[in-house]
Amino acid sequence: MLVIVGNCTVNYEGRAASKLTWGERVLIIKTDGSVLIHRRSGYEPVNWQPPKCQFRVTLEEGKLLSIVATRRKPRESLRLLFDDITVALALTLADEGEFAMHVTEEQMKQAIIVEPSLVEAGLKLISEERKMGDSGFTDVYAEDSQGRLVVVEIKRNAATRDAALQLNRYVETLRKRVNRPVRGILAAPDLKPGTSTLLAKLGYDFKAVSPEKCFQILKPRTDTRLSEFLQ
Amino acid sequence: MLVIVGNCTVNYEGRAASKLTWGERVLIIKTDGSVLIHRRSGYEPVNWQPPKCQFRVTLEEGKLLSIVATRRKPRESLRLLFDDITVALALTLADEGEFAMHVTEEQMKQAIIVEPSLVEAGLKLISEERKMGDSGFTDVYAEDSQGRLVVVEIKRNAATRDAALQLNRYVETLRKRVNRPVRGILAAPDLKPGTSTLLAKLGYDFKAVSPEKCFQILKPRTDTRLSEFLQ
Repeated sequence: MLVIVGNCTVNYEGRAASKLTWGERVLIIKTDGSVLIHRRSGYEPVNWQPPKCQFRVTLEEGKLLSIVATRRKPRESLRLLFDDITVALALTLADEGEFAMHVTEEQMKQAIIVEPSLVEAGLKLISEERKMGDSGFTDVYAEDSQGRLVVVEIKRNAATRDAALQLNRYVETLRKRVNRPVRGILAAPDLKPGTSTLLAKLGYDFKAVSPEKCFQILKPRTDTRLSEFLQ
Repeated sequence: MLVIVGNCTVNYEGRAASKLTWGERVLIIKTDGSVLIHRRSGYEPVNWQPPKCQFRVTLEEGKLLSIVATRRKPRESLRLLFDDITVALALTLADEGEFAMHVTEEQMKQAIIVEPSLVEAGLKLISEERKMGDSGFTDVYAEDSQGRLVVVEIKRNAATRDAALQLNRYVETLRKRVNRPVRGILAAPDLKPGTSTLLAKLGYDFKAVSPEKCFQILKPRTDTRLSEFLQ
């Protein structure tokens, strides 16, 4: 992995084109062939390329003159021209670390509210919770693409038979009250042994919802970015 | 601006939570208080914070021990614990460079096809082009939120009176053929003197569409990212 700090100019050509005039920046080239060019402010890189770039480096009298990173599909190129290098680091990073995301059941619920398609395409939220008599509160109360009511029970860890029975109580309570088909969906990262069989017997669905998916929705990288540009 | 390479562990807590176990990474803290933590591969940072973080740094016997970056709204914190620093750079980057994007007329058209709301909220594309008798081809042929036909004429630079007259020929041709209201919209970064008056006289609209907006749409940062997670 390379980290180069220096005075450079950058030209991108591909689906559009950009030109960054001279200035000091930090260039990062990663082991997978991705490229980042960072200015002193802004958490987004000013130019970047995804992995699998091919590189062409030009030296003049042993001095770095230019780096051209190209990709196909789409055909694009990023050309950096240097006239002064402050620091150049060639790093071998020992990193076998694991990245784990943790979301609470409440945060999973918030993610599903923001993006009901996590549970099922076409699902529409009716309300966050609905009191089910003495059975307690459902997690998410929704309507599917065919207009059927849907009770979603969310579990943070692998769901047990108890979770399936809890879902069953909500659905049974609701069925007594409304004159429409009611479905039950158990949304969890996984199922404990025996839960799948019980769910099938009760006629309910399981949807694997991972903490990773919820994390992406709860902390999206491009918060307000596109919306800024779209007025 | 700081660039620190070292063995670290990272904990994030906020709208969700994440934990990155020990490994060597590159930490960047920018002048605006944004934070990036990069691993050896992947063009996305593994952890990051947008600008305006507040920092608390702990040293032990002159050695960097931890950095905590916090933000409010939403309340979140990123905690880095170090046990070994390979390189630490404090950089003052001289950078008054300008970043300019260039898009061709064809690329602007592609951006508008992908995102018709660039021109007007609720606009729906009917076709990319439509032959208008001897007048040539419209750039974009669409329908507005009230069901009226819309001819969009796109110009890459400040639009001239000629562009308004060209739009007028397309609209006039179309009006002879269909039994529905037809609108004309001139989409360009700006208008040359006199064009605005002529457009108003002809009853057409102008919509400022900048190369920047088109660039963002043509080269989105999060290509397939969310969709990957939403299957």
